[in-house]
Amino acid sequence: MVRKSGTEVGRHREGPAPEVLSVMDDRGRQYLLSTRGNVAQIPELGVISTAKLRANLGRKLSIGSRSVIAIPASPRDRMEGLGRKAQTVGPKDAASLLFNAGIAPDAFVVEAGTGSGWLTVALAIAVGPRGRVVTYEEREDFATFARGNLSLADVEKRVEIRGGDIAHGIIEVDVDAVVLDIPEPWTALQVAWEALRIGGTLCAFSPTTEQVRRTVESIRGLPFLGIRTIEIIEREIVIHEGGTRPSFAPLGHTGYLTFARKVLDTF
Amino acid sequence: MVRKSGTEVGRHREGPAPEVLSVMDDRGRQYLLSTRGNVAQIPELGVISTAKLRANLGRKLSIGSRSVIAIPASPRDRMEGLGRKAQTVGPKDAASLLFNAGIAPDAFVVEAGTGSGWLTVALAIAVGPRGRVVTYEEREDFATFARGNLSLADVEKRVEIRGGDIAHGIIEVDVDAVVLDIPEPWTALQVAWEALRIGGTLCAFSPTTEQVRRTVESIRGLPFLGIRTIEIIEREIVIHEGGTRPSFAPLGHTGYLTFARKVLDTF
Amino acid sequence: MVRKSGTEVGRHREGPAPEVLSVMDDRGRQYLLSTRGNVAQIPELGVISTAKLRANLGRKLSIGSRSVIAIPASPRDRMEGLGRKAQTVGPKDAASLLFNAGIAPDAFVVEAGTGSGWLTVALAIAVGPRGRVVTYEEREDFATFARGNLSLADVEKRVEIRGGDIAHGIIEVDVDAVVLDIPEPWTALQVAWEALRIGGTLCAFSPTTEQVRRTVESIRGLPFLGIRTIEIIEREIVIHEGGTRPSFAPLGHTGYLTFARKVLDTF
Amino acid sequence: MVRKSGTEVGRHREGPAPEVLSVMDDRGRQYLLSTRGNVAQIPELGVISTAKLRANLGRKLSIGSRSVIAIPASPRDRMEGLGRKAQTVGPKDAASLLFNAGIAPDAFVVEAGTGSGWLTVALAIAVGPRGRVVTYEEREDFATFARGNLSLADVEKRVEIRGGDIAHGIIEVDVDAVVLDIPEPWTALQVAWEALRIGGTLCAFSPTTEQVRRTVESIRGLPFLGIRTIEIIEREIVIHEGGTRPSFAPLGHTGYLTFARKVLDTF
Repeated sequence: MVRKSGTEVGRHREGPAPEVLSVMDDRGRQYLLSTRGNVAQIPELGVISTAKLRANLGRKLSIGSRSVIAIPASPRDRMEGLGRKAQTVGPKDAASLLFNAGIAPDAFVVEAGTGSGWLTVALAIAVGPRGRVVTYEEREDFATFARGNLSLADVEKRVEIRGGDIAHGIIEVDVDAVVLDIPEPWTALQVAWEALRIGGTLCAFSPTTEQVRRTVESIRGLPFLGIRTIEIIEREIVIHEGGTRPSFAPLGHTGYLTFARKVLDTF
Repeated sequence: MVRKSGTEVGRHREGPAPEVLSVMDDRGRQYLLSTRGNVAQIPELGVISTAKLRANLGRKLSIGSRSVIAIPASPRDRMEGLGRKAQTVGPKDAASLLFNAGIAPDAFVVEAGTGSGWLTVALAIAVGPRGRVVTYEEREDFATFARGNLSLADVEKRVEIRGGDIAHGIIEVDVDAVVLDIPEPWTALQVAWEALRIGGTLCAFSPTTEQVRRTVESIRGLPFLGIRTIEIIEREIVIHEGGTRPSFAPLGHTGYLTFARKVLDTF
Repeated sequence: MVRKSGTEVGRHREGPAPEVLSVMDDRGRQYLLSTRGNVAQIPELGVISTAKLRANLGRKLSIGSRSVIAIPASPRDRMEGLGRKAQTVGPKDAASLLFNAGIAPDAFVVEAGTGSGWLTVALAIAVGPRGRVVTYEEREDFATFARGNLSLADVEKRVEIRGGDIAHGIIEVDVDAVVLDIPEPWTALQVAWEALRIGGTLCAFSPTTEQVRRTVESIRGLPFLGIRTIEIIEREIVIHEGGTRPSFAPLGHTGYLTFARKVLDTF
Repeated sequence: MVRKSGTEVGRHREGPAPEVLSVMDDRGRQYLLSTRGNVAQIPELGVISTAKLRANLGRKLSIGSRSVIAIPASPRDRMEGLGRKAQTVGPKDAASLLFNAGIAPDAFVVEAGTGSGWLTVALAIAVGPRGRVVTYEEREDFATFARGNLSLADVEKRVEIRGGDIAHGIIEVDVDAVVLDIPEPWTALQVAWEALRIGGTLCAFSPTTEQVRRTVESIRGLPFLGIRTIEIIEREIVIHEGGTRPSFAPLGHTGYLTFARKVLDTF
C-alpha cells in the first residue's frame, strides 16, 4: 500500500455539509437526524448535542448506555429514515426509476402524487441543488406530512408541492421527466405528454398488472417511443461464518415501473 | 384536460443541449450519435446531416428506405449505445449502484477498472457537470477504447483516466465513493478506505459468491459500517394483445453489489 | 467408509427395466433411446446395438469417434428427450405441477390438451404402472405426434388420448386431478368440477396474467377451496474454478400454475 | 356443457381411502387430521366425530361457532400439516427434488437426515404403497418426533428409520435415489455412490454456496454424470378486486438442490 504524500489530489469543492446525519447504534439501528437545532433526539436513546455529533463524524460516541456513530446521510439514508403515512416507492424501485427516467443533475421533474414524500426526496437529491421538483398532491394531510420529510432530508428548497389532481392539468412545460405514482396513471398521460420536453421520460409506478396493461395501452395511443415495463427484484446476500446465501428475509412484490419517451411523430 | 395558457411554468434554465442523440428506426433499433460533426453515420442506414437531426427532434425523418426519430439521449441511452470490449456493468446494476453508492450531483468518485467505460459514463452523468470521476485502468488498450466512449457520451471533461493498479494506491482524497469493478476487490480496500471521506461509500461489483465472501470478510476487518450485499434481478414485462406476462427473454446473472460506509471507529 | 458385507439390504423387487435409456456423450449432449429394437440410432453419432448398451449400463462405450455412457432414463430425461411440436410445459413447471396437483402413484388423471405429450409423459410416470392418464386433444396431428412420444417414453399403456374439446364434456368421473394446459381454461372448469372426486385437484397452466385472472375468478364461482396461483423460477448455479454464481444463461418466463380443490359447499 | 350419462368412465380401482383428512375452516386455516380414532381434535375449534367427517367429505359442517370442510389430504397437505422441530425442506423444494431425483412409484429411496420427517413423508407418498424409504437419523429425539409425523401422514409402513451417521455407511444397495439433507453432504458421497444403482440419482439440499461448492467438487471426483445445481423461487400471485400482482408476502431463500447420476466410468 502506498501512503499518501504531498501529492494528494483533493476535491475541487467542499464536500457535503452534514446538515443531515445518519446515526447508527451498536445494535445496528439507524436514525436520520437534522443538525439544524442545537440538540437532536434519538428515539429510545436520548438527547445529544448536534455540534458534538458534527465534530465527531465517524467516531464512536456514548449516548445513554449505548454507542453511536454519525456520518453524513446518503441519499438512501435520507429516504429510508423518513416517516411514512402510506405505501411508498422504496429504495429498490427508486434506484431503477431515477436511472431509467433519466433524472440527472439540474433536471426539472414533475411528480404525482407526493404521498409521504419518499420518492420526492430521492428525486430532489438526484436533480441536485440546481434542479427542481414539482410534486402534485391532492390530499392536504399528505402534503403537510411530506413537507416535514422534505425538511428533515434538507431538500425543501428544491421542491414545490402543488395541490390538485394532476390529471386536471400540469402547468409546467419543458419538463425532463413526469413520474406518476397514482392509482390511475392513464388519466394523466395526455397532460404528461404536454408537459414533457421532446425526449423527456414518462414514468409510472403501479402495483398490479391490470394497471400496467391499461397504462401501456394508453401510452401506445400517444406519441411516445421506447415504451418498457420492468419489475425489480432485489435479493440481499448474507455472509455468515456458516456460509454465503441469499437472505431468508422477505422479498415481496412492490410494483412495476413503466417508462416511455415523448416524441412528436410515431412510426 | 386543461390546455396550457399564458400561465405556464417553464424551466429556470436551458434544457440539455442535444450533443448526443438517440436515434430509433422503424424496426425498433436504437443508435447513439454525436452531433459534433456536420454529418452522422447510422450503421446500415446511411449518412444524415446533424443539423437536420437537431432541427427535427421528435419528428420522423427518412434515411435511405427507413424512417428514424431522434431525441436527446438519456443516461441509459448514453450507456447502452456504447461499444464494449469486455464484460461490463449494465444498466440494471448501474441503476442500483448509483443510488446505493450515493452518487449525487457534484460528487467526487474514484472507479477501477475503467474497462469499456460504460459504468464510467453512468457515473459521470450522475455527478453532473460540476462533479468529477477519476477512473483507474491498467490496460492501455482499454483506456484508449474507453476514451472514445467517454467522448461519444459527451462526458470526457468530467473524467480523468489514470494508468496503474488501483491496489497500489489512490492519490485522490476526500472522495465520496470508490467503485471497484476489478477481479480482486479485497486488494484495494485499504487504499479505498484512505481515499474516502467519512461516510463515503465503498462499492464492489463481483460475479461470484467467493469474491463476495472474501470482499465482505476483508471489509469487516476495516472501519466500515452499513455493509450490505445485494443482487438485482430485472424482469421485463410484455403487454401483447394476447396478454400480459414477464418476458420469455433471457434474465441471466450478472453480479453482486457490495456496499459499505467509511467510519473511523467500529463497534 | 464401511465396506458392504453380507448384510446388505437390497430392494424388495426388481429395479426399472431399462426400456428407455438416456445416453450422454463426451461433449455433454444427451439422447433418449428406446431399446425395443435391436439397434438404436444416435443422431450425428451413428448406430449402436441396444443389447450392447443394456449390457454396459454406466460404462463408457465408443461410437464413431465419440464416447457415450448409457443409463436408465429418469423421468426428467424421458420428458426432455422428446421431440416437440408446440410450446410445452417444461421440467421446472412439471415438477411443481405434479406435487401441487397431488399426482401420486395409482392416481387417475385427466389432461387437456395433449400437445406434444411432454406433460402427459410426466403425469404417466408419476401415476405409475397402476395409474391412468386420459388426455384430450382436438388436433389429430398433435395426437399422432404425442403418440410417438408416449411410445418412446414407454408409457403408452397407461395413457389414453381422446379427441374433441374438453370444454364439451369429460366422460371420466371420480378423477384425482384435472390438468388444463389450454388457452381458455375457464371454459372447462365446470366439466372439470364434475369429473373430479371430492378433494381432487384442478390445475391450470397459463402464460399470461389475464388468463390467470379470468381462470381464478371463474373458479371462485364454483365449489372449490384452496385456490392458489404460483410462478416457478428455477435458477441454475454454476460452480467453476473461477467461482460460484447463478448461471448467465436464459431464465425466461413460462407460465403461471393455478390450483384448486373440489368441494361440495363453500363458506 | 354435456351432462354425464350412463356412459361415464370411472376409475379402475378404489380412490384413496381418506385415512388422512385436510380440514379447512371458514377463516382459511387448515388442519391435518387422522381418522383412525373415533374422534378428532381440531385445535381451537373442538372435538368432532371422524365418522361424521368421513361421511360428509366436501360438505360444510359446524364445529363450535365455526364451519369446516374436510377433504382427503393431498401430498402437500400431508406435508404442511405436520409439526416441525427443525428447519425442514418445504413444499417448493420438495416438488423439484421429487421430480429431479426421479422419485417414481415403487422407487427405493435412502434419505438422511430424517429431521422432522417432512421430506420423508413427501418421499414416501411419491414412491407409493409398493415403494420404500429408508431414512437415517442420528438424533433419537428427531427420530421419535418424525415417527409421529409419519404416522399422522399414514406412511409409516413404507418407511424405516435407521439410527447412526449415514457417512459411516449405507447398508442398502441397488437404491434408486439417495437424498442428503445434512450439513456436510460431501462426507456421504462415497457411500451414496456405493448404495445407488447405475443411473440412480444423488440429491443434496444445502442452504449455502460454500456447501454447494464443496459438494459439487467432491461429486466431480467420483463417477457421476449430469451434475446440476438449482435454486427454486416460488412466487405466489394474488388476484384481488384491486388487481393482479405477485404477493407482497415473504419469499426468502431456503437452499440449493444438487443432483447427479451414478455411472461406472467418466469421460
